[in-house]
Amino acid sequence: MAEKDQVTLHGMWASPYNKRVELALKVKGIEYEYVEEDLTNKSSLLLQYNPVHKKIPVLVHNGKPVAESLVILEYIDETWKHSPRLLPDDPYERAKVRFWADFLQRQMFEAVSLVVKTEGEAQVRAIEQVHEKLKLLEEGIKGCLPGGSPGVNGESMGLLDIIMCTIFGPHKVQEEVLGVRFIDQEKYPLVSSWVKSLIEHPVVQELIPPHEKVVGLLRYLRENALRSSSA
Amino acid sequence: MAEKDQVTLHGMWASPYNKRVELALKVKGIEYEYVEEDLTNKSSLLLQYNPVHKKIPVLVHNGKPVAESLVILEYIDETWKHSPRLLPDDPYERAKVRFWADFLQRQMFEAVSLVVKTEGEAQVRAIEQVHEKLKLLEEGIKGCLPGGSPGVNGESMGLLDIIMCTIFGPHKVQEEVLGVRFIDQEKYPLVSSWVKSLIEHPVVQELIPPHEKVVGLLRYLRENALRSSSA
Repeated sequence: MAEKDQVTLHGMWASPYNKRVELALKVKGIEYEYVEEDLTNKSSLLLQYNPVHKKIPVLVHNGKPVAESLVILEYIDETWKHSPRLLPDDPYERAKVRFWADFLQRQMFEAVSLVVKTEGEAQVRAIEQVHEKLKLLEEGIKGCLPGGSPGVNGESMGLLDIIMCTIFGPHKVQEEVLGVRFIDQEKYPLVSSWVKSLIEHPVVQELIPPHEKVVGLLRYLRENALRSSSA
Repeated sequence: MAEKDQVTLHGMWASPYNKRVELALKVKGIEYEYVEEDLTNKSSLLLQYNPVHKKIPVLVHNGKPVAESLVILEYIDETWKHSPRLLPDDPYERAKVRFWADFLQRQMFEAVSLVVKTEGEAQVRAIEQVHEKLKLLEEGIKGCLPGGSPGVNGESMGLLDIIMCTIFGPHKVQEEVLGVRFIDQEKYPLVSSWVKSLIEHPVVQELIPPHEKVVGLLRYLRENALRSSSA
């Protein structure tokens, strides 16, 4: 099957959602063609593939499009069933992974995004929210993450590793632009060790954009968000 | 395995999230014990089972808790593999179901909830949002839903049927309390036929609370939301 498979990813270099799919494809060793989309002038193909959200990433597999990063990750793992698996086999372990994936995606990622978009009192509250969620995650890792401890699944990265990596992988960028330290070894030892091991992973190293480029982008996004909220 | 299984659902009668799990258990023919939670005074068991969100529904299977309705639904389908299946077997069809489940959950449900919580200009905008999403769904049903047409999967209900049912199953209640008609045969013929067939399904009929009781609850929730937003 592998020889005939045509896999194309429509993405944008700095998108964490896109990065998830790139990481998953690399982890599974799936060859793909990458199409960088200009989000200010989306290609007609992208609009045709994702008419509902009109967003990247879209994975096109033998002509059939799949959108939404978490949906794509499960699709990849169910279509290319070879190891490494992104999700465990056991239904209960899968449920735990999906629970925490949802927590990271909807709660943690949203909270960090809010810190980027706010200043003053509103930002102080947003930062507190991130710390609340980091506390929950630190506790959750103890009992609930697969294997009971953080890490990169032995040698390979799983679904949670991938999502976590796209939230706190750029934590040094967050520190520089936002002046906040979230990945703090003293406050959150398990979370911090987890993030550190993720960043050192060869697949992640291969896909990390240059620090200065991400700093520039985050500054731009922050200024834009603050300008439109005060307009 | 069925004889030894101990299945308990912690829920609240009017919660659409809880209703999803009840529907799934009924569709699959899984016996369970139901524990009604008082959300103003949550049981210590609930807090122990779901320390992260402290929310219903929680499904407890042989002592092991699973939280978050969509996670629970996938857990049920992967644990009790007998038909009817809530998700199709094919990975691409599964991806389509998950895509639309996410759309219904994050976009449609949120949009309808906003209509409940707003009035005046803000409500007019919220209503427009729901109609935008209904248009997308009406288009999506044509090409993207499993089987290419709305319905209840032949005889049994699938994941999307269940979620849809918990959003627009009470559309008559929405009409009465909010004065808006979303399920409109002329505007959205496919969506409307789908909702109609869902409501007539025996499993749904068995689980629908009395109309007046739901009207009373929605009025109460609306008044509460408007009071706290103007406070």
